[in-house]
Amino acid sequence: MDDDFPAGMVWLVGAGPGDPELLTRKAERLIRRASVILYDALVGPGILDFAAPGARLEHVGKRSGRHSRDQRTIDRMIVEAALAGERVVRLKGGDPAIFARAGEELGAARAAGIAVRICPGVTAASAAAASLGTSLTLRGLARRLTLVTAHARAGEALTLNWSELADPDATLAIYMGKVVAAQVAENLILAGLNPDTPVAMVENASLPDERVVRTRLDLLGLVADAALGSGPALLLIGSALADSGAAVGARCQVMVAARPPK
Amino acid sequence: MDDDFPAGMVWLVGAGPGDPELLTRKAERLIRRASVILYDALVGPGILDFAAPGARLEHVGKRSGRHSRDQRTIDRMIVEAALAGERVVRLKGGDPAIFARAGEELGAARAAGIAVRICPGVTAASAAAASLGTSLTLRGLARRLTLVTAHARAGEALTLNWSELADPDATLAIYMGKVVAAQVAENLILAGLNPDTPVAMVENASLPDERVVRTRLDLLGLVADAALGSGPALLLIGSALADSGAAVGARCQVMVAARPPK
Repeated sequence: MDDDFPAGMVWLVGAGPGDPELLTRKAERLIRRASVILYDALVGPGILDFAAPGARLEHVGKRSGRHSRDQRTIDRMIVEAALAGERVVRLKGGDPAIFARAGEELGAARAAGIAVRICPGVTAASAAAASLGTSLTLRGLARRLTLVTAHARAGEALTLNWSELADPDATLAIYMGKVVAAQVAENLILAGLNPDTPVAMVENASLPDERVVRTRLDLLGLVADAALGSGPALLLIGSALADSGAAVGARCQVMVAARPPK
Repeated sequence: MDDDFPAGMVWLVGAGPGDPELLTRKAERLIRRASVILYDALVGPGILDFAAPGARLEHVGKRSGRHSRDQRTIDRMIVEAALAGERVVRLKGGDPAIFARAGEELGAARAAGIAVRICPGVTAASAAAASLGTSLTLRGLARRLTLVTAHARAGEALTLNWSELADPDATLAIYMGKVVAAQVAENLILAGLNPDTPVAMVENASLPDERVVRTRLDLLGLVADAALGSGPALLLIGSALADSGAAVGARCQVMVAARPPK
Protein backbone atom coordinates (compact mmCIF):
# COMPACT_ATOMS: atom_id res chain seq x y z
CA MET A 1 0.00 0.00 0.00
CA ASP A 2 1.20 3.52 -0.76
CA ASP A 3 1.87 5.70 2.24
CA ASP A 4 -1.39 7.57 2.80
CA PHE A 5 0.00 9.81 5.54
CA PRO A 6 3.21 11.52 4.42
CA ALA A 7 4.71 14.46 6.33
CA GLY A 8 2.88 17.71 5.64
CA MET A 9 -0.49 16.04 5.17
CA VAL A 10 -3.74 16.57 7.08
CA TRP A 11 -6.38 13.97 7.94
CA LEU A 12 -9.73 15.06 9.32
CA VAL A 13 -10.55 12.03 11.45
CA GLY A 14 -13.93 11.08 12.87
CA ALA A 15 -13.51 9.90 16.45
CA GLY A 16 -17.06 8.55 16.69
CA PRO A 17 -19.31 9.10 19.71
CA GLY A 18 -16.69 8.76 22.43
CA ASP A 19 -16.20 5.10 23.32
CA PRO A 20 -12.65 4.26 22.14
CA GLU A 21 -14.01 0.95 20.83
CA LEU A 22 -16.22 2.87 18.39
CA LEU A 23 -13.21 4.36 16.68
CA THR A 24 -12.57 2.79 13.27
CA ARG A 25 -9.43 0.76 12.76
CA LYS A 26 -8.28 3.37 10.25
CA ALA A 27 -8.78 6.24 12.69
CA GLU A 28 -6.73 4.37 15.26
CA ARG A 29 -3.91 3.88 12.74
CA LEU A 30 -3.90 7.56 11.72
CA ILE A 31 -3.94 8.75 15.36
CA ARG A 32 -0.99 6.45 16.17
CA ARG A 33 0.92 7.89 13.21
CA ALA A 34 0.19 11.62 13.75
CA SER A 35 2.86 14.00 15.03
CA VAL A 36 0.28 16.71 15.77
CA ILE A 37 -3.30 16.09 16.93
CA LEU A 38 -5.78 18.95 17.18
CA TYR A 39 -8.80 17.64 19.04
CA ASP A 40 -12.30 18.74 20.01
CA ALA A 41 -13.83 18.87 23.47
CA LEU A 42 -16.00 15.87 22.63
CA VAL A 43 -13.04 13.57 21.98
CA GLY A 44 -12.46 11.51 25.11
CA PRO A 45 -9.21 10.62 26.86
CA GLY A 46 -9.39 6.93 25.93
CA ILE A 47 -9.02 7.94 22.29
CA LEU A 48 -6.10 10.29 22.82
CA ASP A 49 -4.29 7.41 24.54
CA PHE A 50 -3.62 6.00 21.07
CA ALA A 51 -1.38 8.97 20.23
CA ALA A 52 2.34 8.26 19.82
CA PRO A 53 4.47 9.18 22.85
CA GLY A 54 6.13 12.17 21.14
CA ALA A 55 3.00 13.58 19.48
CA ARG A 56 1.88 17.13 20.24
CA LEU A 57 -1.77 17.18 21.40
CA GLU A 58 -3.70 20.42 21.26
CA HIS A 59 -7.19 20.92 22.58
CA VAL A 60 -9.08 23.27 20.24
CA GLY A 61 -12.56 22.31 21.37
CA LYS A 62 -15.55 24.54 21.42
CA ARG A 63 -17.98 24.07 24.30
CA SER A 64 -20.42 26.59 25.63
CA GLY A 65 -19.03 28.45 28.61
CA ARG A 66 -15.46 27.29 28.15
CA HIS A 67 -12.54 29.11 26.65
CA SER A 68 -12.17 27.98 23.07
CA ARG A 69 -10.51 28.95 19.83
CA ASP A 70 -12.49 30.34 16.96
CA GLN A 71 -12.74 28.52 13.64
CA ARG A 72 -10.21 30.74 11.86
CA THR A 73 -7.61 30.09 14.54
CA ILE A 74 -8.16 26.36 14.17
CA ASP A 75 -7.87 26.60 10.37
CA ARG A 76 -4.59 28.50 10.79
CA MET A 77 -3.20 25.99 13.29
CA ILE A 78 -3.94 23.13 10.87
CA VAL A 79 -2.24 24.91 7.98
CA GLU A 80 0.80 25.96 10.00
CA ALA A 81 1.39 22.48 11.36
CA ALA A 82 1.13 20.92 7.90
CA LEU A 83 3.42 23.51 6.32
CA ALA A 84 5.94 22.78 9.10
CA GLY A 85 6.04 19.20 7.85
CA GLU A 86 3.97 17.59 10.59
CA ARG A 87 1.58 14.69 10.09
CA VAL A 88 -1.60 16.40 11.24
CA VAL A 89 -4.72 14.69 12.56
CA ARG A 90 -7.69 16.98 13.14
CA LEU A 91 -9.77 14.81 15.44
CA LYS A 92 -13.49 15.50 15.62
CA GLY A 93 -16.32 13.87 17.54
CA GLY A 94 -18.65 11.79 15.37
CA ASP A 95 -18.17 11.99 11.60
CA PRO A 96 -16.25 14.91 10.07
CA ALA A 97 -18.79 15.39 7.25
CA ILE A 98 -21.81 15.89 9.52
CA PHE A 99 -22.13 19.13 11.53
CA ALA A 100 -18.41 19.31 12.22
CA ARG A 101 -17.39 22.39 10.20
CA ALA A 102 -15.09 20.30 8.04
CA GLY A 103 -15.87 22.54 5.05
CA GLU A 104 -13.89 25.44 6.51
CA GLU A 105 -10.90 23.27 7.39
CA LEU A 106 -10.83 21.46 4.05
CA GLY A 107 -11.01 24.82 2.27
CA ALA A 108 -8.20 26.35 4.35
CA ALA A 109 -5.89 23.39 3.79
CA ARG A 110 -6.56 23.25 0.05
CA ALA A 111 -6.08 27.00 -0.32
CA ALA A 112 -2.61 26.50 1.17
CA GLY A 113 -1.84 23.63 -1.23
CA ILE A 114 -1.95 21.02 1.52
CA ALA A 115 -3.16 17.47 0.88
CA VAL A 116 -6.17 16.81 3.10
CA ARG A 117 -8.43 13.78 3.39
CA ILE A 118 -11.31 12.58 5.57
CA CYS A 119 -11.49 9.40 7.63
CA PRO A 120 -15.19 8.86 8.35
CA GLY A 121 -16.57 8.05 11.78
CA VAL A 122 -19.72 6.78 13.48
CA THR A 123 -22.08 9.74 13.68
CA ALA A 124 -24.07 10.56 16.82
CA ALA A 125 -27.41 9.43 15.36
CA SER A 126 -26.05 5.92 14.74
CA ALA A 127 -24.49 5.78 18.20
CA ALA A 128 -27.71 6.92 19.85
CA ALA A 129 -29.76 4.36 17.94
CA ALA A 130 -27.36 1.64 19.07
CA SER A 131 -27.71 2.77 22.69
CA LEU A 132 -31.49 2.70 22.32
CA GLY A 133 -31.45 -0.67 20.60
CA THR A 134 -33.64 0.61 17.80
CA SER A 135 -33.62 1.20 14.06
CA LEU A 136 -34.01 4.81 12.92
CA THR A 137 -35.77 3.69 9.76
CA LEU A 138 -38.69 1.29 9.47
CA ARG A 139 -40.27 0.06 6.27
CA GLY A 140 -43.52 1.89 5.68
CA LEU A 141 -43.29 3.84 8.93
CA ALA A 142 -40.04 5.85 8.98
CA ARG A 143 -38.66 5.90 5.49
CA ARG A 144 -36.58 9.02 5.87
CA LEU A 145 -34.00 10.15 8.37
CA THR A 146 -33.36 13.87 8.69
CA LEU A 147 -30.37 15.21 10.59
CA VAL A 148 -30.33 18.82 11.71
CA THR A 149 -28.29 20.75 14.19
CA ALA A 150 -30.02 22.98 16.67
CA HIS A 151 -26.91 24.70 17.88
CA ALA A 152 -28.17 28.17 18.78
CA ARG A 153 -26.91 30.68 21.30
CA ALA A 154 -29.00 31.11 24.44
CA GLY A 155 -32.01 33.29 23.72
CA GLU A 156 -31.58 33.04 19.95
CA ALA A 157 -34.52 31.68 17.98
CA LEU A 158 -34.00 28.62 15.83
CA THR A 159 -34.59 29.14 12.14
CA LEU A 160 -35.46 25.68 10.97
CA ASN A 161 -38.07 24.84 8.39
CA TRP A 162 -40.59 23.38 10.82
CA SER A 163 -43.26 22.46 8.28
CA GLU A 164 -40.77 20.26 6.42
CA LEU A 165 -39.46 18.73 9.63
CA ALA A 166 -42.93 17.92 11.03
CA ASP A 167 -43.25 14.79 8.91
CA PRO A 168 -44.93 11.79 10.58
CA ASP A 169 -43.17 9.41 8.14
CA ALA A 170 -39.68 10.58 9.04
CA THR A 171 -37.29 10.21 11.93
CA LEU A 172 -35.76 13.48 13.01
CA ALA A 173 -32.33 13.56 14.67
CA ILE A 174 -31.37 16.83 16.31
CA TYR A 175 -27.69 17.25 17.10
CA MET A 176 -26.76 19.36 20.14
CA GLY A 177 -30.46 19.54 20.87
CA LYS A 178 -30.78 19.76 24.63
CA VAL A 179 -30.81 23.55 25.02
CA VAL A 180 -33.44 23.96 22.32
CA ALA A 181 -35.61 20.94 23.21
CA ALA A 182 -38.62 22.98 24.37
CA GLN A 183 -38.46 25.22 21.30
CA VAL A 184 -38.20 22.21 18.98
CA ALA A 185 -41.21 20.51 20.53
CA GLU A 186 -43.37 23.63 20.44
CA ASN A 187 -42.55 24.36 16.81
CA LEU A 188 -43.05 20.80 15.62
CA ILE A 189 -46.44 20.56 17.33
CA LEU A 190 -47.47 23.94 15.88
CA ALA A 191 -46.41 22.64 12.46
CA GLY A 192 -48.74 19.67 12.86
CA LEU A 193 -46.72 16.83 14.36
CA ASN A 194 -48.73 14.73 16.81
CA PRO A 195 -48.05 15.74 20.44
CA ASP A 196 -47.72 12.10 21.48
CA THR A 197 -45.00 11.36 18.92
CA PRO A 198 -42.33 9.27 20.68
CA VAL A 199 -39.06 10.99 21.58
CA ALA A 200 -35.77 9.60 22.82
CA MET A 201 -32.81 11.59 24.07
CA VAL A 202 -29.36 10.13 24.42
CA GLU A 203 -26.75 12.06 26.36
CA ASN A 204 -23.07 11.05 26.22
CA ALA A 205 -23.93 8.16 23.88
CA SER A 206 -21.53 5.21 24.22
CA LEU A 207 -19.71 6.67 27.26
CA PRO A 208 -19.80 5.32 30.85
CA ASP A 209 -22.10 8.18 31.91
CA GLU A 210 -24.49 7.65 29.01
CA ARG A 211 -28.09 8.53 29.78
CA VAL A 212 -31.16 7.53 27.79
CA VAL A 213 -34.44 9.35 28.29
CA ARG A 214 -37.70 8.46 26.59
CA THR A 215 -40.77 10.62 26.49
CA ARG A 216 -43.31 12.13 24.08
CA LEU A 217 -43.14 15.30 22.07
CA ASP A 218 -45.42 17.43 24.25
CA LEU A 219 -43.35 16.63 27.35
CA LEU A 220 -39.98 17.04 25.67
CA GLY A 221 -39.06 20.48 26.99
CA LEU A 222 -39.94 19.61 30.57
CA VAL A 223 -38.23 16.24 30.50
CA ALA A 224 -35.06 17.47 28.79
CA ASP A 225 -34.54 20.05 31.53
CA ALA A 226 -35.31 17.63 34.33
CA ALA A 227 -33.56 14.49 33.15
CA LEU A 228 -30.51 15.50 31.13
CA GLY A 229 -27.18 16.67 32.45
CA SER A 230 -24.66 18.95 30.77
CA GLY A 231 -23.21 16.45 28.26
CA PRO A 232 -23.88 16.54 24.53
CA ALA A 233 -27.31 15.12 23.76
CA LEU A 234 -29.00 13.92 20.61
CA LEU A 235 -32.78 14.17 20.31
CA LEU A 236 -34.60 11.58 18.22
CA ILE A 237 -38.21 12.20 17.27
CA GLY A 238 -40.58 9.95 15.34
CA SER A 239 -42.70 6.85 15.35
CA ALA A 240 -39.64 4.59 14.93
CA LEU A 241 -38.71 5.41 18.50
CA ALA A 242 -41.85 3.74 19.84
CA ASP A 243 -40.56 0.37 18.80
CA SER A 244 -37.39 0.31 20.81
CA GLY A 245 -37.96 -2.42 23.34
CA ALA A 246 -35.55 -2.60 26.23
CA ALA A 247 -32.38 -0.63 25.65
CA VAL A 248 -30.15 -3.37 26.95
CA GLY A 249 -27.06 -1.29 26.29
CA ALA A 250 -28.02 1.84 28.17
CA ARG A 251 -26.38 2.44 31.51
CA CYS A 252 -29.00 4.85 32.77
CA GLN A 253 -32.53 4.95 31.50
CA VAL A 254 -35.39 7.28 32.38
CA MET A 255 -38.87 7.04 30.95
CA VAL A 256 -41.45 9.79 31.23
CA ALA A 257 -44.47 8.80 29.19
CA ALA A 258 -47.37 9.98 31.31
CA ARG A 259 -48.48 13.57 31.32
CA PRO A 260 -47.65 15.14 34.70
CA PRO A 261 -50.51 16.51 36.84
CA LYS A 262 -51.32 20.16 36.15
CA MET B 1 -15.65 -5.29 32.08
CA ASP B 2 -18.67 -7.55 32.19
CA ASP B 3 -18.93 -10.03 29.34
CA ASP B 4 -21.07 -8.27 26.75
CA PHE B 5 -21.29 -11.28 24.44
CA PRO B 6 -22.45 -14.38 26.34
CA ALA B 7 -23.62 -17.53 24.58
CA GLY B 8 -27.16 -17.18 23.22
CA MET B 9 -26.86 -13.47 22.55
CA VAL B 10 -27.23 -11.59 19.25
CA TRP B 11 -25.31 -8.50 18.12
CA LEU B 12 -26.42 -6.59 15.04
CA VAL B 13 -23.08 -5.27 13.86
CA GLY B 14 -22.45 -2.47 11.38
CA ALA B 15 -19.66 -3.45 9.02
CA GLY B 16 -19.31 0.05 7.59
CA PRO B 17 -18.92 0.74 3.87
CA GLY B 18 -16.66 -2.18 2.96
CA ASP B 19 -13.03 -1.28 3.65
CA PRO B 20 -11.98 -3.52 6.58
CA GLU B 21 -10.16 -0.50 8.04
CA LEU B 22 -13.50 1.28 8.39
CA LEU B 23 -14.80 -1.38 10.75
CA THR B 24 -14.95 -0.14 14.34
CA ARG B 25 -12.65 -1.73 16.90
CA LYS B 26 -15.75 -3.03 18.68
CA ALA B 27 -17.15 -4.63 15.53
CA GLU B 28 -13.83 -6.37 14.99
CA ARG B 29 -13.89 -7.72 18.55
CA LEU B 30 -17.46 -9.00 18.23
CA ILE B 31 -16.75 -10.65 14.85
CA ARG B 32 -13.69 -12.39 16.31
CA ARG B 33 -15.81 -13.68 19.19
CA ALA B 34 -18.88 -14.86 17.23
CA SER B 35 -19.60 -18.54 16.69
CA VAL B 36 -22.18 -17.80 13.99
CA ILE B 37 -22.02 -14.88 11.54
CA LEU B 38 -24.96 -14.13 9.24
CA TYR B 39 -23.73 -11.60 6.69
CA ASP B 40 -25.09 -9.45 3.89
CA ALA B 41 -23.95 -9.33 0.29
CA LEU B 42 -22.38 -5.93 0.86
CA VAL B 43 -20.00 -7.19 3.54
CA GLY B 44 -16.62 -7.78 1.91
CA PRO B 45 -14.21 -10.71 2.32
CA GLY B 46 -11.59 -8.64 4.17
CA ILE B 47 -14.07 -8.22 7.00
CA LEU B 48 -15.06 -11.88 7.21
CA ASP B 49 -11.36 -12.71 7.58
CA PHE B 50 -11.65 -11.55 11.20
CA ALA B 51 -13.98 -14.44 12.01
CA ALA B 52 -12.64 -17.13 14.34
CA PRO B 53 -11.42 -20.31 12.57
CA GLY B 54 -14.31 -22.46 13.80
CA ALA B 55 -17.10 -19.91 13.25
CA ARG B 56 -20.00 -20.76 10.95
CA LEU B 57 -20.40 -18.08 8.25
CA GLU B 58 -23.71 -17.81 6.42
CA HIS B 59 -24.40 -15.52 3.51
CA VAL B 60 -27.96 -14.22 3.80
CA GLY B 61 -27.53 -11.24 1.50
CA LYS B 62 -30.16 -9.70 -0.68
CA ARG B 63 -29.01 -8.36 -4.03
CA SER B 64 -31.15 -7.82 -7.09
CA GLY B 65 -30.96 -10.74 -9.46
CA ARG B 66 -29.32 -13.10 -7.01
CA HIS B 67 -30.81 -15.88 -4.99
CA SER B 68 -31.41 -14.57 -1.50
CA ARG B 69 -33.31 -15.32 1.64
CA ASP B 70 -36.37 -13.36 2.62
CA GLN B 71 -36.47 -11.32 5.79
CA ARG B 72 -38.55 -13.84 7.75
CA THR B 73 -36.06 -16.59 6.99
CA ILE B 74 -33.22 -14.39 8.23
CA ASP B 75 -35.16 -13.54 11.40
CA ARG B 76 -35.73 -17.24 12.00
CA MET B 77 -32.05 -18.11 11.42
CA ILE B 78 -30.98 -15.49 13.97
CA VAL B 79 -33.43 -16.76 16.58
CA GLU B 80 -32.58 -20.43 16.03
CA ALA B 81 -28.84 -19.84 16.31
CA ALA B 82 -29.24 -17.84 19.53
CA LEU B 83 -31.60 -20.40 21.07
CA ALA B 84 -29.02 -23.08 20.23
CA GLY B 85 -26.56 -21.19 22.44
CA GLU B 86 -24.45 -19.63 19.72
CA ARG B 87 -22.85 -16.19 19.92
CA VAL B 88 -24.56 -14.63 16.91
CA VAL B 89 -23.29 -11.69 14.88
CA ARG B 90 -25.70 -10.38 12.27
CA LEU B 91 -23.31 -8.41 10.08
CA LYS B 92 -24.76 -5.64 7.94
CA GLY B 93 -23.22 -3.16 5.53
CA GLY B 94 -23.06 0.41 6.89
CA ASP B 95 -24.90 1.10 10.13
CA PRO B 96 -27.62 -1.29 11.39
CA ALA B 97 -30.00 1.53 12.33
CA ILE B 98 -30.11 3.13 8.86
CA PHE B 99 -31.96 1.35 6.04
CA ALA B 100 -30.84 -2.07 7.20
CA ARG B 101 -34.12 -3.61 8.35
CA ALA B 102 -32.82 -3.96 11.88
CA GLY B 103 -36.30 -3.35 13.25
CA GLU B 104 -37.55 -6.72 12.07
CA GLU B 105 -34.54 -8.58 13.46
CA LEU B 106 -34.59 -6.79 16.82
CA GLY B 107 -38.28 -7.54 17.11
CA ALA B 108 -37.89 -11.21 16.25
CA ALA B 109 -35.07 -11.69 18.76
CA ARG B 110 -36.91 -9.87 21.55
CA ALA B 111 -40.11 -11.79 20.88
CA ALA B 112 -38.10 -14.97 21.50
CA GLY B 113 -36.62 -13.60 24.73
CA ILE B 114 -33.14 -13.26 23.25
CA ALA B 115 -30.76 -10.48 24.33
CA VAL B 116 -29.93 -8.38 21.29
CA ARG B 117 -27.83 -5.23 20.92
CA ILE B 118 -26.52 -3.01 18.16
CA CYS B 119 -22.90 -2.13 17.39
CA PRO B 120 -23.06 1.00 15.21
CA GLY B 121 -21.08 1.41 11.99
CA VAL B 122 -20.04 4.07 9.50
CA THR B 123 -23.03 4.72 7.28
CA ALA B 124 -22.74 5.05 3.50
CA ALA B 125 -23.32 8.81 3.46
CA SER B 126 -20.33 9.38 5.74
CA ALA B 127 -18.17 7.05 3.70
CA ALA B 128 -19.16 8.73 0.43
CA ALA B 129 -18.43 12.19 1.86
CA ALA B 130 -14.99 10.98 2.94
CA SER B 131 -14.31 9.64 -0.56
CA LEU B 132 -15.39 12.96 -2.03
CA GLY B 133 -13.38 14.96 0.49
CA THR B 134 -16.34 17.12 1.32
CA SER B 135 -18.61 18.02 4.20
CA LEU B 136 -22.28 17.16 3.81
CA THR B 137 -23.31 20.13 5.92
CA LEU B 138 -22.16 23.73 5.53
CA ARG B 139 -23.06 26.63 7.78
CA GLY B 140 -25.71 28.77 6.14
CA LEU B 141 -25.73 26.66 2.97
CA ALA B 142 -26.56 23.06 3.83
CA ARG B 143 -27.92 22.96 7.36
CA ARG B 144 -29.84 19.74 7.02
CA LEU B 145 -28.94 16.27 5.84
CA THR B 146 -31.75 14.01 4.69
CA LEU B 147 -31.22 10.31 4.12
CA VAL B 148 -33.72 8.36 2.06
CA THR B 149 -33.65 5.01 0.39
CA ALA B 150 -34.77 4.70 -3.17
CA HIS B 151 -34.86 0.97 -3.26
CA ALA B 152 -37.68 0.24 -5.69
CA ARG B 153 -38.29 -2.71 -7.95
CA ALA B 154 -37.66 -2.16 -11.66
CA GLY B 155 -40.61 -0.36 -13.22
CA GLU B 156 -42.10 0.60 -9.85
CA ALA B 157 -42.63 4.30 -9.19
CA LEU B 158 -40.97 5.86 -6.19
CA THR B 159 -43.32 7.31 -3.60
CA LEU B 160 -41.16 9.93 -1.94
CA ASN B 161 -42.36 13.32 -0.80
CA TRP B 162 -40.60 15.31 -3.53
CA SER B 163 -41.72 18.76 -2.42
CA GLU B 164 -40.11 18.24 0.98
CA LEU B 165 -36.97 16.76 -0.53
CA ALA B 166 -36.50 19.57 -3.07
CA ASP B 167 -34.95 21.90 -0.49
CA PRO B 168 -32.05 24.07 -1.69
CA ASP B 169 -30.75 24.39 1.90
CA ALA B 170 -30.44 20.65 2.45
CA THR B 171 -28.13 17.89 1.34
CA LEU B 172 -29.99 14.84 0.13
CA ALA B 173 -28.40 11.39 0.38
CA ILE B 174 -30.12 8.64 -1.55
CA TYR B 175 -29.17 5.11 -0.58
CA MET B 176 -29.28 2.44 -3.31
CA GLY B 177 -30.00 5.26 -5.73
CA LYS B 178 -28.51 4.21 -9.05
CA VAL B 179 -31.51 2.46 -10.60
CA VAL B 180 -33.80 5.36 -9.76
CA ALA B 181 -31.40 8.23 -10.54
CA ALA B 182 -33.32 9.51 -13.58
CA GLN B 183 -36.63 9.37 -11.71
CA VAL B 184 -35.15 11.20 -8.72
CA ALA B 185 -33.73 13.99 -10.87
CA GLU B 186 -36.94 14.46 -12.82
CA ASN B 187 -39.09 14.63 -9.69
CA LEU B 188 -36.78 16.98 -7.80
CA ILE B 189 -36.64 19.39 -10.75
CA LEU B 190 -40.43 19.25 -11.13
CA ALA B 191 -40.69 20.02 -7.41
CA GLY B 192 -38.59 23.13 -7.90
CA LEU B 193 -34.97 22.19 -7.26
CA ASN B 194 -32.54 24.02 -9.54
CA PRO B 195 -31.50 21.85 -12.52
CA ASP B 196 -27.85 22.81 -12.06
CA THR B 197 -27.76 21.66 -8.42
CA PRO B 198 -24.49 19.76 -7.92
CA VAL B 199 -24.67 15.98 -7.67
CA ALA B 200 -22.07 13.42 -6.68
CA MET B 201 -22.40 9.66 -6.93
CA VAL B 202 -20.13 7.27 -5.11
CA GLU B 203 -20.16 3.62 -6.09
CA ASN B 204 -18.44 1.01 -3.90
CA ALA B 205 -17.34 3.72 -1.46
CA SER B 206 -14.07 2.87 0.32
CA LEU B 207 -13.40 -0.26 -1.77
CA PRO B 208 -10.59 -0.74 -4.30
CA ASP B 209 -13.07 -0.38 -7.17
CA GLU B 210 -14.63 2.80 -5.77
CA ARG B 211 -15.91 5.19 -8.40
CA VAL B 212 -16.80 8.85 -7.90
CA VAL B 213 -18.92 10.66 -10.45
CA ARG B 214 -19.80 14.34 -10.34
CA THR B 215 -22.47 16.00 -12.39
CA ARG B 216 -25.51 18.26 -12.08
CA LEU B 217 -29.10 17.38 -11.38
CA ASP B 218 -30.44 17.69 -14.94
CA LEU B 219 -27.77 15.30 -16.24
CA LEU B 220 -28.05 12.81 -13.39
CA GLY B 221 -30.09 10.13 -15.14
CA LEU B 222 -27.89 10.12 -18.21
CA VAL B 223 -24.64 10.15 -16.27
CA ALA B 224 -25.67 7.49 -13.75
CA ASP B 225 -26.43 5.09 -16.58
CA ALA B 226 -23.23 5.88 -18.45
CA ALA B 227 -20.70 6.13 -15.66
CA LEU B 228 -21.75 3.76 -12.88
CA GLY B 229 -21.27 0.02 -12.76
CA SER B 230 -23.33 -2.55 -10.90
CA GLY B 231 -22.05 -1.86 -7.38
CA PRO B 232 -24.07 -0.16 -4.65
CA ALA B 233 -24.11 3.59 -5.20
CA LEU B 234 -25.03 6.54 -3.04
CA LEU B 235 -26.35 9.71 -4.66
CA LEU B 236 -25.63 13.03 -2.98
CA ILE B 237 -27.52 16.10 -4.12
CA GLY B 238 -27.15 19.69 -2.95
CA SER B 239 -25.06 22.82 -2.97
CA ALA B 240 -22.58 21.37 -0.44
CA LEU B 241 -21.35 19.09 -3.22
CA ALA B 242 -20.09 22.03 -5.27
CA ASP B 243 -17.41 22.74 -2.72
CA SER B 244 -15.62 19.46 -2.85
CA GLY B 245 -12.24 20.31 -4.31
CA ALA B 246 -10.11 17.43 -5.50
CA ALA B 247 -11.24 14.10 -4.15
CA VAL B 248 -7.74 12.97 -3.26
CA GLY B 249 -9.05 9.72 -1.91
CA ALA B 250 -11.04 8.58 -4.92
CA ARG B 251 -9.53 5.86 -7.04
CA CYS B 252 -11.63 6.63 -10.12
CA GLN B 253 -13.22 9.95 -10.78
CA VAL B 254 -15.49 11.08 -13.59
CA MET B 255 -16.85 14.57 -14.00
CA VAL B 256 -19.71 15.43 -16.34
CA ALA B 257 -20.62 19.06 -15.81
CA ALA B 258 -21.38 20.26 -19.33
CA ARG B 259 -24.70 19.61 -20.98
CA PRO B 260 -24.22 17.13 -23.81
CA PRO B 261 -25.07 18.19 -27.39
CA LYS B 262 -28.67 17.48 -28.40
